[in-house]
Amino acid sequence: MSQTNTLFVMIASILVLLMTPGLAFFYGGLINHRHANNMLLTIFMMCGLAVILWITVGYSLSFSGNHWGIIGNLHNILMINVSINAVTKTGIPIGDYAMFFMMFAIITPAIFCGSVVGHGRFHFLIIFTICWSIFVYYPLVHMVWAPHGFLASLGAVDFAGGLVVHVNSGITALILSAWVGRRKEVYSHHNNLSWVLIGTALLWIGWYGFNAGSALAVDDTAVQAMLTTTIACSTAMVTWMLLDRYRLNHVTLAGVCNGAVTGLVAITPSAGYVTLGGSMIIGMVGAMISQSFITQVKPHLAIDDVIDAFGCHGISGIWGSIATGIFASHQISDQVPNGLLFGGGFHLLIIQTAVTLLTITFITIMDIILIKTLTIALPVSIDSRKICRGSE
Amino acid sequence: MSQTNTLFVMIASILVLLMTPGLAFFYGGLINHRHANNMLLTIFMMCGLAVILWITVGYSLSFSGNHWGIIGNLHNILMINVSINAVTKTGIPIGDYAMFFMMFAIITPAIFCGSVVGHGRFHFLIIFTICWSIFVYYPLVHMVWAPHGFLASLGAVDFAGGLVVHVNSGITALILSAWVGRRKEVYSHHNNLSWVLIGTALLWIGWYGFNAGSALAVDDTAVQAMLTTTIACSTAMVTWMLLDRYRLNHVTLAGVCNGAVTGLVAITPSAGYVTLGGSMIIGMVGAMISQSFITQVKPHLAIDDVIDAFGCHGISGIWGSIATGIFASHQISDQVPNGLLFGGGFHLLIIQTAVTLLTITFITIMDIILIKTLTIALPVSIDSRKICRGSE
Amino acid sequence: MSQTNTLFVMIASILVLLMTPGLAFFYGGLINHRHANNMLLTIFMMCGLAVILWITVGYSLSFSGNHWGIIGNLHNILMINVSINAVTKTGIPIGDYAMFFMMFAIITPAIFCGSVVGHGRFHFLIIFTICWSIFVYYPLVHMVWAPHGFLASLGAVDFAGGLVVHVNSGITALILSAWVGRRKEVYSHHNNLSWVLIGTALLWIGWYGFNAGSALAVDDTAVQAMLTTTIACSTAMVTWMLLDRYRLNHVTLAGVCNGAVTGLVAITPSAGYVTLGGSMIIGMVGAMISQSFITQVKPHLAIDDVIDAFGCHGISGIWGSIATGIFASHQISDQVPNGLLFGGGFHLLIIQTAVTLLTITFITIMDIILIKTLTIALPVSIDSRKICRGSE
Repeated sequence: MSQTNTLFVMIASILVLLMTPGLAFFYGGLINHRHANNMLLTIFMMCGLAVILWITVGYSLSFSGNHWGIIGNLHNILMINVSINAVTKTGIPIGDYAMFFMMFAIITPAIFCGSVVGHGRFHFLIIFTICWSIFVYYPLVHMVWAPHGFLASLGAVDFAGGLVVHVNSGITALILSAWVGRRKEVYSHHNNLSWVLIGTALLWIGWYGFNAGSALAVDDTAVQAMLTTTIACSTAMVTWMLLDRYRLNHVTLAGVCNGAVTGLVAITPSAGYVTLGGSMIIGMVGAMISQSFITQVKPHLAIDDVIDAFGCHGISGIWGSIATGIFASHQISDQVPNGLLFGGGFHLLIIQTAVTLLTITFITIMDIILIKTLTIALPVSIDSRKICRGSE
Repeated sequence: MSQTNTLFVMIASILVLLMTPGLAFFYGGLINHRHANNMLLTIFMMCGLAVILWITVGYSLSFSGNHWGIIGNLHNILMINVSINAVTKTGIPIGDYAMFFMMFAIITPAIFCGSVVGHGRFHFLIIFTICWSIFVYYPLVHMVWAPHGFLASLGAVDFAGGLVVHVNSGITALILSAWVGRRKEVYSHHNNLSWVLIGTALLWIGWYGFNAGSALAVDDTAVQAMLTTTIACSTAMVTWMLLDRYRLNHVTLAGVCNGAVTGLVAITPSAGYVTLGGSMIIGMVGAMISQSFITQVKPHLAIDDVIDAFGCHGISGIWGSIATGIFASHQISDQVPNGLLFGGGFHLLIIQTAVTLLTITFITIMDIILIKTLTIALPVSIDSRKICRGSE
Repeated sequence: MSQTNTLFVMIASILVLLMTPGLAFFYGGLINHRHANNMLLTIFMMCGLAVILWITVGYSLSFSGNHWGIIGNLHNILMINVSINAVTKTGIPIGDYAMFFMMFAIITPAIFCGSVVGHGRFHFLIIFTICWSIFVYYPLVHMVWAPHGFLASLGAVDFAGGLVVHVNSGITALILSAWVGRRKEVYSHHNNLSWVLIGTALLWIGWYGFNAGSALAVDDTAVQAMLTTTIACSTAMVTWMLLDRYRLNHVTLAGVCNGAVTGLVAITPSAGYVTLGGSMIIGMVGAMISQSFITQVKPHLAIDDVIDAFGCHGISGIWGSIATGIFASHQISDQVPNGLLFGGGFHLLIIQTAVTLLTITFITIMDIILIKTLTIALPVSIDSRKICRGSE
């Protein structure tokens, strides 16, 4: 056991866990007052649900064995037959490794759940999350991060979960909010900007566990990931601020926070693979396209994604995943070939684009099947107030 | 010096410190609006008071020398004669070790102080905390964790402070609130659910320092403690939620948060000693009995424990301490014999039950003596508003 | 590469970053309601701005080369020519080292910006911060912490940034608020005490990264710094509380929090150099003189330092810097000679006093030149509401 790497992944796990309450406050602050406590409840509750699911079947379906590169087996359900103290390649115990990925399994459904709070049914959301975890999330983890995963075997790289976490939750948020339909009453004013700030701060802090932690070892890649994460977050924050200044003639706290989160999303797939200069551009462009989508495209859609889970995580996740094909540098990390900008030609760019499209297709099809199946038995969209009164 | 273990205990200390502001928000959110700022003040102020007490006499009375297995001596008051740089068994400097236990000495009085805010006098609470630290807390630390401690010598195990912190503060909260009497006005509505959530999040995060940190080394026990802590917290959270659903027909954020904290309390005494399956059950049962006490038993008592410090920390602390005798596994940690479930028979269960009863008796007697003595000179219960106006 | 030291500085960087949102809430809670969101925006926005500045020119001007002991060169702008993976003396990669000091470059301007929110123009503040970073902050970092820095070569010691961060931001806050003038409407009531508490908690937690992290290695100095930081914070908190009790006849949450921050400021320059007893006195005296200034001196000045950035950071920073000359102990750290109290005579005390005065002079002159120059083109003080509406 490498003590230092083990400690590193323990701390990274704690930091990633912190992101979920962070997200609760971020979303709770953006939604209107009436649904704010409901948002906090819905997102925080995911912590309990997703941990139990992960221990019960998630770890096993993700990392135990391999069926067609798409999903694991049930050999390790309830963590049975797992040698918790056996160590992985970087010298961390399997227990530590399983814990780190457990935290990713919490935050991902939390992201899309936020998008339908206030117009989706609480019961439906819980059942959907359970099914989605089993039929969408664990397969995707297996495909991208397991040794014989299908997408990994195509040569795709996803440093810290751009596809698995952000594209996944972003697309699911889009489909879910399309299905649930528009809220009857839409409030234009944000609920509570201090929540947005504390949420953003916790997300930013937690993201270091997410990105640097994904190196699974205290090494140059982890340090590089911390630097690129900080820089992409900052350039996206300032870009969003300047765009707001230009567009609205004043800067807003919600905009600055949204920008920061967008930058963090955009750098996730490539955090350990790109140069500092690359991370600057990735953050900047992420903020530009996410803001363009939210302000220019979304108003024309009939989709009511309350807290812009798709606009932020989906759009910037897709951009970040493709951008890895442009900015990846073999000199920074020998786990990637050079991207377009560093003489690697279109090779990696094509793979990343193809894999991103494949992932989007997979998620879309699975989500629609799940929703169609579930809606046979369960009402999707009623006023959640009757079911779950978070404020009492 | 083991650098990695030293770093681990430094971080664990920081995490445990974070629990006290976490507790302030958790309690402050549960109490009615009028006393909320008072709650924040009373609990946060403990940080300053308890640190000074610990440095002045606490460390010495807890860990220097040994009188009858019950208390240390005054050889190290003001940390004089302490070789701060000398290392302990796991290679951490004494200074680091003293700091970690200092953080426990902050959170424990903070737990019971919360139970009388709004009906106990601020001055009385300060004087009581000072006396209680000297006559109850430091002796209990010595008895359980010092090399020749009386309770440790009986074969009792307490991984991270179930007896020392949770049973101790829970019982003290009960006695204190019985003495102080009921509040004149009782508000049924919670003050601020967002405070409850941020408090719970900080407590959960900090608890990793509390439980994993108690291994005092980055080893398999620490990793196991992190896993069991996460799992017990999650099962308790979901159990409480389901019970609320059944009992009230809807789920509540306060319930989800209370459940999480209950699970964290319940797993504390055995975090490094039990299997993952064991931790699931410990959390589940903790939530069930704590909720039963709070909803079924407490309304019939004439005790006004404002924020359920006894119902949560006392009840689940007692359960967790006894449950260690059932679920402890020698295979998980060679520091414990097998419990009832793993073929160890009733041996450890009887010890744990006996020691828990002994501890409760000790705390009860000492608390009553302290309160009786102090009330000769000091008024206990007046409207604290006149003394301390936190809101100004 | 020393993995443990690298991990330590990574974590310390994250903790220091946490201080900036902490400061946003601390200040936002102290200012009146109308400017609270504006405060959050102004301070949080610094994160983005200062990171970009640091990467662009800051690191280079601070640590690359040496001109007259006063400033570095532009050899490393945009981190070009930096061997990110090369290691420093304590075995941490340059990338990690640069990141740690990047976080200091965020928090320092954040401290003084808070003092003019509500009466200073947002645009002016951004331009001023950029110029101040280049002409005041980076030179001071170079003079104190770079190998051939002018102040370091005089024998001055500044463990974690008493001069560079606190005296610097405190003096700048004083000058800036003098220039901007008084607010038209002054509210006597605090906005939100829960913000003050969460801010203080984040500051305290983050300060461990600031102070212990400044050892740049997991060693006895780091542990000593954690202990002295905790103790000085606690004695200052309790001192402030007792003074409030004496002066106002009741204790206040804002006072307790102010006291804690004051103690943290006061111990910063000497955290790794003094004994535990020394830290007790440093914290206590820090609280006494800062409170005296704020309650006795400030009302007679025509300066409207909204959130007492000077009273707290300036005064206690100056005290802490001079106190290092009194309480430094060569036995605690061989990087310092003995101070007055440990038989070193007036040698270090004179150096520290002289260097503190030099620093104040340097900052004052540079700040005035900057403000004078900028005000030729930019209006300083108008109602910021028209420019920046944080609440929308």
